[in-house]
Parts: sequence; C-alpha cells; structure tokens
Amino acid sequence: MLATPGIDVWVATASAAGSPYLVPVSLAWVDGRAVIAVARSSLTATNLTTSREARLAVGPTRDVVMIDAALEEVVDVAADAALGSAYVAQADWDPRDDTGYVFLVLRPVRVQAWREANEIPGRTLMRDGAWLTEMEA
Amino acid sequence: MLATPGIDVWVATASAAGSPYLVPVSLAWVDGRAVIAVARSSLTATNLTTSREARLAVGPTRDVVMIDAALEEVVDVAADAALGSAYVAQADWDPRDDTGYVFLVLRPVRVQAWREANEIPGRTLMRDGAWLTEMEA
Repeated sequence: MLATPGIDVWVATASAAGSPYLVPVSLAWVDGRAVIAVARSSLTATNLTTSREARLAVGPTRDVVMIDAALEEVVDVAADAALGSAYVAQADWDPRDDTGYVFLVLRPVRVQAWREANEIPGRTLMRDGAWLTEMEA
Repeated sequence: MLATPGIDVWVATASAAGSPYLVPVSLAWVDGRAVIAVARSSLTATNLTTSREARLAVGPTRDVVMIDAALEEVVDVAADAALGSAYVAQADWDPRDDTGYVFLVLRPVRVQAWREANEIPGRTLMRDGAWLTEMEA
C-alpha cells in the first residue's frame, strides 16, 4: 500500500522550542524509506533538520499507518537522479525544476497500524527499524 | 463543515524536548472551540498540557482545514455535563464513563483552507483568533 502512486502523507514535526507543525504532502516509498519533497525554507524542513524526527500518518483517520521516522538525508532535488526519478514515478508532481526544494529521506523506526483509534495503538508492524511481520513496502 | 457529526481530526503536538506526536481522534466543535477526548496519560494530553499548542487538520489531504490552536482548558470528562453532552452529540463515542479521560478544549488561533497543498498555504480564514471571512463554525 505504501508504494501506491499518488499517496499523500501527514508529516508532523516539532520546532526546537516545542511548537508542533503538520502538513500533508506527497509520499514516495524508495528503498524502504519515506521520501517527501518540500521547500528547503519550509518549517517542515527546518524542524526536521534540527530534531531529525518526524511522525507520519498514511491513510484515512480510521485505517491508518502511523510511522515514527528519523531523518536520514536531505538531498537537493536536482542532486540525485535515481532518487528524483523514483519520487516522480510515485508522486503526482515533479519538484526537480523548482529551485529551493529538497528531498527529505525518512527512515521508519516504528510502524503501527491503527483502526478506529482513540489514542489506542493497534498492531505494531515495525520496531527499532525491524519489520515484525511480512509487509509490502 | 467543522461541526458535522462523526468528523475526525489529526492532532499534532510536540514534547518539551521537541519530539513530534500525531494522532487521529474524534472532533466536536463546541462554542467555537475544537474539543477532543483523550486519556489524561496520553502523549497528546501530556504534550498539550506542557506546550499549550496544537496543530489540527480536518479533512482529506487535498481539501483540508489546518488549525493552529491553543489549549484553553483540560476538563475531566465527568466534570462538565454540558460539554460532555455537546461532545457526545457530535463524536461517535462516549468517553464519559471511561476513567482517566479528559476533554481538551482548543481555541483556534489561525485557520487555513488548503487544497492540493505542497507546503503552499492557501486561504487564511482566521488570524489571531478572528475570522477573516464568513464561515459556518
């Protein structure tokens, strides 16, 4: 599911001062990493570059995959042709000609599947970066 | 739209150490406030009690209302009958018999409508707590 074209992801980050931020962006899933493209000057990029942590949600509120992720790399959109192609093949826009955009490459650390969640976590699919169950990713 | 029964909200918060958190929960809209019910021991309640700030998203990723909100009150679910009734009338569950649950009453400070957002904010509907446009709320 995660590598389906045209999927969006909710990306929650926090500033060093502890202010939450949240945006929906297009998601690509490349070599087991969640890849998003944002402006280098965006709050999301600034927060992630500082804290190195994001919490992602993929899917609707009652059938969602929650992903705690660590920032692995910040890559200028024009700098890595393979990453750029992989992103564009899955996302429905092409950031490679936009100046000031970067790919944020996020390594999943914990993955949980939630249904009808009211703060009650469901099945943990990944812990400490290791899949606990077979999953297409 | 915001007061429609059975609506969920994405709630992004941050710890004092700057770790992001994100959960989907049921939303009620009461007297111009976004009201959610969570366990008092949840990360969402802990983070909000400390930082007093949340960022909310209502709707799907490409037609979403983004709300920056301030924590106004933490109310035990059994403590305020009017608030409890209003919440239950809109949400599709009843937390009032669950021990350890609280209502978090969140005052919107800034509201934005985003469509097809890739980190590009759309129309600002509220700024500094004041509606800039007519909106059913």
